[in-house]
Amino acid sequence: MHAYRSHTCADLNTSHVGNEVRLSGWVHRVRDHGGVLFIDLRDHYGITQVIADSDSPAFADMDKVRAEWVVRIDGRVKGRDASLVNPKLPTGEIEVYATALTVLGAAEELPLPVFGEVEYPEETRLTYRFLDLRREKLHRNMMLRSNVVRSMRNRMWDQGFTEFQTPIITASSPEGARDFLVPSRLHPGKFYALPQAPQQFKQLIMVAGFDRYFQIAPCFRDEDPRADRSPTDFYQLDIEMSFVEQEDVFAAVQPVVQGIFEEFAPGKKVYSDWTKIAYRDSLKWYGSDKPDLRNPIKMQDVSEHFAGSGFAIFAKLLEVEGNEVRAIPAPTGGSRKFCDRMNAFAQKEGLPGMGYIFWREAEDAQERMAEMRASIEAFQADLVGKLGAKVDNSLLRMVAMYGKTRSGKRIIADNVGEERAKAKKFSFAENGYLTDLGRKLILCFFEDEGFLEHKSALIADSAMEAAGPLAKNIGPERTEAIRVQLGLGKGDAAFFLGGKPEAFEAISGRARNEIGRELGLTEKDCFKFAWIVDFPMYEKTDDGKIDFSHNPFSMPQGGMEALNGDPLNVYAYQYDLACNGYELISGGIRNHKPEIMFKAFELAGYPNSEVEKRFGGMVKAFKYGAPPHGGCAAGIDRIVMLLADEPNIREVIMFPMNQRAEDMLMGAPSEPMNAQLRELGLRVVPKD
Amino acid sequence: MHAYRSHTCADLNTSHVGNEVRLSGWVHRVRDHGGVLFIDLRDHYGITQVIADSDSPAFADMDKVRAEWVVRIDGRVKGRDASLVNPKLPTGEIEVYATALTVLGAAEELPLPVFGEVEYPEETRLTYRFLDLRREKLHRNMMLRSNVVRSMRNRMWDQGFTEFQTPIITASSPEGARDFLVPSRLHPGKFYALPQAPQQFKQLIMVAGFDRYFQIAPCFRDEDPRADRSPTDFYQLDIEMSFVEQEDVFAAVQPVVQGIFEEFAPGKKVYSDWTKIAYRDSLKWYGSDKPDLRNPIKMQDVSEHFAGSGFAIFAKLLEVEGNEVRAIPAPTGGSRKFCDRMNAFAQKEGLPGMGYIFWREAEDAQERMAEMRASIEAFQADLVGKLGAKVDNSLLRMVAMYGKTRSGKRIIADNVGEERAKAKKFSFAENGYLTDLGRKLILCFFEDEGFLEHKSALIADSAMEAAGPLAKNIGPERTEAIRVQLGLGKGDAAFFLGGKPEAFEAISGRARNEIGRELGLTEKDCFKFAWIVDFPMYEKTDDGKIDFSHNPFSMPQGGMEALNGDPLNVYAYQYDLACNGYELISGGIRNHKPEIMFKAFELAGYPNSEVEKRFGGMVKAFKYGAPPHGGCAAGIDRIVMLLADEPNIREVIMFPMNQRAEDMLMGAPSEPMNAQLRELGLRVVPKD
Repeated sequence: MHAYRSHTCADLNTSHVGNEVRLSGWVHRVRDHGGVLFIDLRDHYGITQVIADSDSPAFADMDKVRAEWVVRIDGRVKGRDASLVNPKLPTGEIEVYATALTVLGAAEELPLPVFGEVEYPEETRLTYRFLDLRREKLHRNMMLRSNVVRSMRNRMWDQGFTEFQTPIITASSPEGARDFLVPSRLHPGKFYALPQAPQQFKQLIMVAGFDRYFQIAPCFRDEDPRADRSPTDFYQLDIEMSFVEQEDVFAAVQPVVQGIFEEFAPGKKVYSDWTKIAYRDSLKWYGSDKPDLRNPIKMQDVSEHFAGSGFAIFAKLLEVEGNEVRAIPAPTGGSRKFCDRMNAFAQKEGLPGMGYIFWREAEDAQERMAEMRASIEAFQADLVGKLGAKVDNSLLRMVAMYGKTRSGKRIIADNVGEERAKAKKFSFAENGYLTDLGRKLILCFFEDEGFLEHKSALIADSAMEAAGPLAKNIGPERTEAIRVQLGLGKGDAAFFLGGKPEAFEAISGRARNEIGRELGLTEKDCFKFAWIVDFPMYEKTDDGKIDFSHNPFSMPQGGMEALNGDPLNVYAYQYDLACNGYELISGGIRNHKPEIMFKAFELAGYPNSEVEKRFGGMVKAFKYGAPPHGGCAAGIDRIVMLLADEPNIREVIMFPMNQRAEDMLMGAPSEPMNAQLRELGLRVVPKD
Repeated sequence: MHAYRSHTCADLNTSHVGNEVRLSGWVHRVRDHGGVLFIDLRDHYGITQVIADSDSPAFADMDKVRAEWVVRIDGRVKGRDASLVNPKLPTGEIEVYATALTVLGAAEELPLPVFGEVEYPEETRLTYRFLDLRREKLHRNMMLRSNVVRSMRNRMWDQGFTEFQTPIITASSPEGARDFLVPSRLHPGKFYALPQAPQQFKQLIMVAGFDRYFQIAPCFRDEDPRADRSPTDFYQLDIEMSFVEQEDVFAAVQPVVQGIFEEFAPGKKVYSDWTKIAYRDSLKWYGSDKPDLRNPIKMQDVSEHFAGSGFAIFAKLLEVEGNEVRAIPAPTGGSRKFCDRMNAFAQKEGLPGMGYIFWREAEDAQERMAEMRASIEAFQADLVGKLGAKVDNSLLRMVAMYGKTRSGKRIIADNVGEERAKAKKFSFAENGYLTDLGRKLILCFFEDEGFLEHKSALIADSAMEAAGPLAKNIGPERTEAIRVQLGLGKGDAAFFLGGKPEAFEAISGRARNEIGRELGLTEKDCFKFAWIVDFPMYEKTDDGKIDFSHNPFSMPQGGMEALNGDPLNVYAYQYDLACNGYELISGGIRNHKPEIMFKAFELAGYPNSEVEKRFGGMVKAFKYGAPPHGGCAAGIDRIVMLLADEPNIREVIMFPMNQRAEDMLMGAPSEPMNAQLRELGLRVVPKD
């Protein structure tokens, strides 16, 4: 028999009853049921229940072991009584009657329990990571991560990509973040750097004639601590392709990423319509370049309704070129309590507050409703008179439709179907019901009864009024225009932010998230993706200079010609993939023409010599026959976090640093030996 | 149509004739055949011939392009005349008649041609690596490497292993080589280290309860330059398993490695009998712990024949305890010229020389041969007389067999087959021909004529004599005893080295290689593997202290008990895989018991406190329930070098450093910026 096991702790079932077996694993739990000892024996694969009574030669040994000891058990498989079967365990129908127990590795008193998922301070968990990793959730997360990476690789190969490894000890390549440096011993005083990303190398691989590259690549950025970011290294799925345009990259990437989410998020919906949203639209609509599209709220520019209005703050603000007022519609948010809570949220975010309007039942509701009802009934009568002969009266149903519904949908077209409506030769207001109806009153006939409910709801809707100080300031007409533009109704609200969009967009985005979450509007258990495209190439810095707004190596849309115009009008072939409020992927079509690259840098104030100096290897390569190419990089930690539904990156990394970039387990960083410093020609200078 | 291509340069064949196509790629070669221009257009996938005559609108543009420009070609597929078909190219039956050419990326004058495999200085090749990589051989090597790694991964997964990534920025872990250090900015004066291997992490993964780990792991060692080693980082297939013994690791690894070699070395024989050789035997037999078993030469201890002999140097030397004389048999090396050449080789290696004996035709050969012939003929006549009636005389063939043949084989059994010999009821000297025959004279009958040749050869063999000064010194009897022990014959030689084995083993190993190669004995086009096992745990250092001879973390065979005896008699569960003279894999069963580990270190002079300090993370982990575990690591660069048949590691790495650990392309290492040093709290100290 094998020295340690004949089976794993997940293998045994009723077919093994009577067999002599050997198992090895950790003591997950020991229980003493009055003279009968139970051990839940755990290994990588599962758990098997081991028992011994006082007749067993293993009894005395079993009585000594404690949680997390590693033991070997020899024994005989027994079926459990039907009443003792544990249907949650694959081995739940059997147990092993122990005849011998051998201690393979004892354990001292545990600083952290493995059994049960009790919360423990992160410091303890990281110091005893090897114990923490034995817990079910972390074990599962690690396996998930490994399987995700494997699946990614296979999917990339299946798409004709080849994986190449690029150097890790290499040259400094300023890409925005800070490099980790590595002092050279053979060249004292000189330093290597760890790559922030294999950006230049993957472009060189294209110039070297390889067509479709990928790599599960370690990346190194010396960044300041942040909760959802590893302070040292992280992994990305790095991709580059030759002879492609933006759409080719999208077509290659979507099946890989969508496939991963479908494979590893069972029970969650993975949307396959990946819309493209221009960077500026994304900021405007969602207050973010990585919008969470599970949230249906779309912000709108409502400046026209405030310009010259009685709300002096906004009116005045709109006199300044570039300022805007934007609305965050909040369907079902129409209560003063909710609006005040959101206002408080904005104040916590550093704003003076958010103006709002909400719509509620009017004080004269009864009166208005009676008036509306009468008007509808008169219209109905008139219509029956006119059309009665043409329809089957026994099925005749009438519903009043008042403009669009509160969710902005056209109920008639959606529910009856355009075809069906046409077949019946309904013709109201030149088929106006299929377009934006404004305030027009429309009637239509239905064969089913569902819409009778709408009739009364719409009658009730007509009896609403706008509330909130803003509504009073700008008056009923502007208020109603805003409501119609936003497609809101009774019980809804809208919030307003004004100023320079760049100044309030981020906060508006966070408010949108908060509103969507608070009101339960944000869809659960799903993944929604969008490509954010058309990033501006340049931006004006605070001191009025032109600088790159994102990646300087992306190809400007329109090429050299575009660069001869206003830099602020130049868009780059650059794109991000947003998913549920996170940026999963970032990429671009690269600028592979040296002359366009030099020009692009010149506009941002970098002379050719500086470009040659900082990106010498790549610029040199482009002079010897470079193909058009582009690609992207996907954050693996982030993808696994989404799939594991973990908010903390340390839950999906085997041996993470703490937030102060310290390895609690291995003790890093640490003081070097003097001999090491001497070899490197370095001296530590005490900081002031 | 796609912006860059409708097909790749490997796609088109006669089925596309008449189609309008678009290709993009590099101008591999331009030829002008009197008014007709030819371009060999190359991409990652293949080459397609493009032509244009003066009628083509693309003619003028095609006339301008030069080698390595990137161009897009629009054109029409044409079949080639039968006489112009190139059977070597998948696209060799067609060509593309160009109607338009667009330059996508021009190239300056090339510092290094891509077409043709002309040798160029390595400095140039590394500086323009992106051009060098476009050449066929390097392109092929890179694809090979990528495919090997992919296959490794799949084979590991198929065996139930899971890949986990371990930290790259981590703690210093002294494993014999020098660490690369990474200064910490958040903790000035402290340093991280890059891992020399994920040794401690993979053991921690086992302690954390994962069962079968692997990783294609980057490893970092700050080593001094050497031709066949990357001076900074390299990759290994890192493996660890829980609840295993040595044989379990072998059983898991062999199918992976053997499978890789079978998959990627087509036409080469991959031996599947992986013998196990004890470390000390390997040194004795092959002069190396990574023997090249394609070479059949096996060295032997021949001390007994020299002890007290007339060869004073060896005789005297053998009086010292521990000294030995070993022989390198050199079949077919029996000429003074060859022996002198080997002697010169030994002198170049720093020895005074290698003693030798070789066997040649004796001076009285004619006489001896006549005597032998007569004796055989008499025997034949006698035998015919005795057996004539029982055999078919017309087929009767007789061959004299004189002991074993020079290659040590038993010719009769090998050629006739034991079964056949038995079926004919041959019975000579109690079937002695199947055992070692020594000098006995044997006859047998054959139905085929091949062995008549042997008859004369063997008669000739009988007329040999030993030559060389050593033979004279020790006399004919000892010389003959050596010849018999080594199984040599006329035309063969043997070389002798004496002293402390550790002092000459390495040189004897190199001499063995040289002899095998020079004499053409080393088998070509094959891979032969052996596990080298039973490494000694400790060795005596020059100053008489006991120190670890290899890996301090391996489990001593016999555990704690063995450590209580003589340390120099302790073997470790540690092993290497040798293949064709290279160490491909190294590994061990780990010492997972803290008490045995402390004891093992204590024997080597390390107090517990030192062990806790240097390997704190791992030692701590072992105190909380560690499973028995073991594993190994396989050098990926080395495996690819063997498969690609490349002697230089830089031919199988995408972006290698030069031998001075400099990146010629990206310019690393380089001077840091002062601000960077300031942030890190470091100052460069000029060396004296």
